[in-house]
Amino acid sequence: MLPKGFRAAGLCAGIKGTEKKDLGLLHADVPANAAGVFTTNRVQAAPVLLDRKRIRSGWCRSIIVNSGNANCCTGPKGMQDAETMTRCTASALGVEAEEVLAASTGVIGEPLPIERIENAIPELVRRLRPEGVLDFAEAILTTDTRPKVVSRKGVLDGVEYAVTGIAKGAGMIHPHMATLLCFVCTDLEAPAKDLHRALFRSVEGSLNRISIDGDMSTNDTVLILANGASGAALAGDVSLEKFQRILDDVLGTLARDLVRDGEGVTKVVEIIVEGALSAEAARRVAETVATSSLVKTALFGEDANWGRILAAVGRAGILVDPEKIDVFFNDVRLVKGGVGCGKTAEAEATRVLRRPEFCLKVSLGQGSAGAAVVTSDLSVDYVKINAHYRS
Amino acid sequence: MLPKGFRAAGLCAGIKGTEKKDLGLLHADVPANAAGVFTTNRVQAAPVLLDRKRIRSGWCRSIIVNSGNANCCTGPKGMQDAETMTRCTASALGVEAEEVLAASTGVIGEPLPIERIENAIPELVRRLRPEGVLDFAEAILTTDTRPKVVSRKGVLDGVEYAVTGIAKGAGMIHPHMATLLCFVCTDLEAPAKDLHRALFRSVEGSLNRISIDGDMSTNDTVLILANGASGAALAGDVSLEKFQRILDDVLGTLARDLVRDGEGVTKVVEIIVEGALSAEAARRVAETVATSSLVKTALFGEDANWGRILAAVGRAGILVDPEKIDVFFNDVRLVKGGVGCGKTAEAEATRVLRRPEFCLKVSLGQGSAGAAVVTSDLSVDYVKINAHYRS
Repeated sequence: MLPKGFRAAGLCAGIKGTEKKDLGLLHADVPANAAGVFTTNRVQAAPVLLDRKRIRSGWCRSIIVNSGNANCCTGPKGMQDAETMTRCTASALGVEAEEVLAASTGVIGEPLPIERIENAIPELVRRLRPEGVLDFAEAILTTDTRPKVVSRKGVLDGVEYAVTGIAKGAGMIHPHMATLLCFVCTDLEAPAKDLHRALFRSVEGSLNRISIDGDMSTNDTVLILANGASGAALAGDVSLEKFQRILDDVLGTLARDLVRDGEGVTKVVEIIVEGALSAEAARRVAETVATSSLVKTALFGEDANWGRILAAVGRAGILVDPEKIDVFFNDVRLVKGGVGCGKTAEAEATRVLRRPEFCLKVSLGQGSAGAAVVTSDLSVDYVKINAHYRS
Repeated sequence: MLPKGFRAAGLCAGIKGTEKKDLGLLHADVPANAAGVFTTNRVQAAPVLLDRKRIRSGWCRSIIVNSGNANCCTGPKGMQDAETMTRCTASALGVEAEEVLAASTGVIGEPLPIERIENAIPELVRRLRPEGVLDFAEAILTTDTRPKVVSRKGVLDGVEYAVTGIAKGAGMIHPHMATLLCFVCTDLEAPAKDLHRALFRSVEGSLNRISIDGDMSTNDTVLILANGASGAALAGDVSLEKFQRILDDVLGTLARDLVRDGEGVTKVVEIIVEGALSAEAARRVAETVATSSLVKTALFGEDANWGRILAAVGRAGILVDPEKIDVFFNDVRLVKGGVGCGKTAEAEATRVLRRPEFCLKVSLGQGSAGAAVVTSDLSVDYVKINAHYRS
C-alpha cells in the first residue's frame, strides 16, 4: 500500500494508558525531498516548532508520531522531548536527528511520557515494513473511529508512481488547519520547492476547506516526502500539473473522510456558495454558514430551517441583498429571492436532509465567484465526547 | 413596576399555537422621546426595517411585539404585516401609525398569522395597565424559561425617576446583538439624541458583551422610551452621566440574566482578558475564547482543559507570546507562562468549575488593555433544543 522505498510501523507504547497503538514511524529508505504545511495558530506544539525549522533543508528520512499527547504548552521540556523523540529514532535507524521530523496529537498541556517513547522506538524500528501503513495509520488516531489511508497511481513518461496519504482528524477541525496530521509519501522524484507548491495548493482546496467545530489546532502538520524510487520524475509544468491533480485527489478524499469521521458527526454537508462578487466573499459566507451552531444543530435535527442559513449569511460581514438569495438542498430549491418556497419544497428538502451526505447551496445573485466548504452537523454526541475528553 | 405614565399588557393571540402569551404591548400615555439600536445582520426582519425608519423621528408612543414568529425573510408581505400590526395598534389606541414601533421574534421565514394579531389587538389595548409589565415580559419570550424585568430608581435635582428594562434572549445570542429584544422605559425627560448616545454606550458594555452560541439574529431590537412623567429632566453632562450609570446597571443586569437563561445553559462564565496591547485585541481574544465549541463543551463537562483555552487564544488573529500567558479560574492560577501549574491547581480550578457562575481570566502579559465577555457552556440540551426547534 505504500509507494516504493517507504516502510511504516505502529505499536502501543503506553502513552494513552490503554492497549491502543499510540506511536508510529514512517521511513524513507533513501533520503526523500520533503515539504510541509503547519497550523497558523499562534500557540504551536513543540514538534511543530521543530519541524518548521528542520523542513527548511528540503529533505527528510523519517517521521515519528505519537498520539495521546499533543506535547503543546509544555515549556522547554516539551522541546527537549520532541528533540529526544527524533534523536532516539535517528539513532535506531542509523540516520541523523536533523533528518527526522516529529508530530504529536492529543491532550494539550501535559508533559510527554518520553521514557515510554524512548523504550518503544527500537521495537518500532524493527517492525518497519512496506505493509506497515495501517499500523502507522492506527497509531496516529485520537478520537477518530477508523484509520484513513488513500492511495493513487500516476504515470509520467510511461513510468508509474504512487502517492499515499495517511491522516487523522476528529476534533479541532477548521479551515486554516486543524488537529490534523497528514503524511503523504510518493516514489516520484520531485524537487522540494515543487513539492511545497503542490502541497500548499492541494491543502488550500482540501484540508483548508473543511470544518467540524470551528476550532483550530496547535498541532496541525501536513508533510510530503518524495523519494524518487519509482524512477518517474517531475519535469516541467505539464508533469507538475498531472501530479497536482493526483495530490488534489488524495488530499480531497482524505479531507472528506476526516469530516465523515469527525466527532459525533452524523451528516457530511458540502456548503457551496455561488454568485458572489469575489472568491473571498464567497468563502466568508461559506465558512460562516459552515460554523454556525444553529445551522449545524438544525442539520443534526434534519430540520430544513433555512431561516438560520439566511441569518448566518447575513452576519458574514459581506454586503448581500437578501432579496437575491436562493438556497438549495441538492437540487431542491428551498428559498427563492430571500423567501421560502413553501411546504412542498420543505418536505422535499427534508428528504434530502435525511441522507448522510448532501450539498447545501447558497446563491447570492451578485456575481460569478464561488467557494465551497465541507462541514458536519453539531450533535449531542459531539458535546458528550468533548465535555469529558480528558476523563 | 413600570415608570410613571407607562402601561403594558400581554396575552395569547394564538401565534405560537399554544396557550402561551405571544402578543405584548408597551404604551406611553404621553408621547415619549425614543432611540433604538438594531441588529447589524445584513438580513433583517421587516419590523426592524420599519422601526429603523420610524425611530428617526426621535419619538414613539407604543411598541407592539409578537413572539413565535420573527417576520423575517417573508418578502413584501412581511413588511405589509409589520405595518398592519402598527396600524391596528394605532387605531385601537387613537394615535398615529407612525408613532407605533413593532418587534417580532421566533421562527424565521414563515408568514406572520396577521389576522390573529389583528383580532387580538383591541383586547390587548383594553388590558393595558401599569401592572401589566410581567404579562408583557412573558408575551415576548421564545425558548426563554422566565421573564426578565429589571427596575432601578434615580434622582436628579431631588426628583426621583424610574428606569425599567424588559428583555428576552435564549438563542442566537452574540455580541453585536442577538435574537434579543429589549425595551427600556423611563419617566425621565430626556432628548432623543441623549437617549441614543446613552443607549449605544450601555449596549456596548452589556448586550454587546454576551455570547451564547455565536449566532447573530435578524431581529435584534433595543428601544428606549422616555416620557418625562416624573418631572425629572436631563440637564447637562453630570445628569447624563448619572443616568448612564443607572442605564448601564439595568442593561448589564438584563444581559447577565439573558446568559443565565440561555438555551441549555448550565454555566455563566465571564471571560476576562487583560494585559493586551489594545482593547480591540483583548476583545478579539475574549470573543474567540467565549465562542470556542471546545472551550464551551469543556465548561459543560466541568473539565479544566486549559489547553483548549490557549488553543483558542492562539487562533484569535492577535500576535501573542504563548510563554507570557497566564490563565485563572476565579483566583486559581491554572497556567503560568504558557505552562500548566500542575495537579493541585487543576483540582482547585475544577472546584471553581463546579459553580454555576465564575470568571475565566486570560492574562496576555503584553500591555495594559482589557476586555470582558459573558458566555455560557455548550450543553447537550443546547443541541437538543436547537435540533428540533421548529417541530
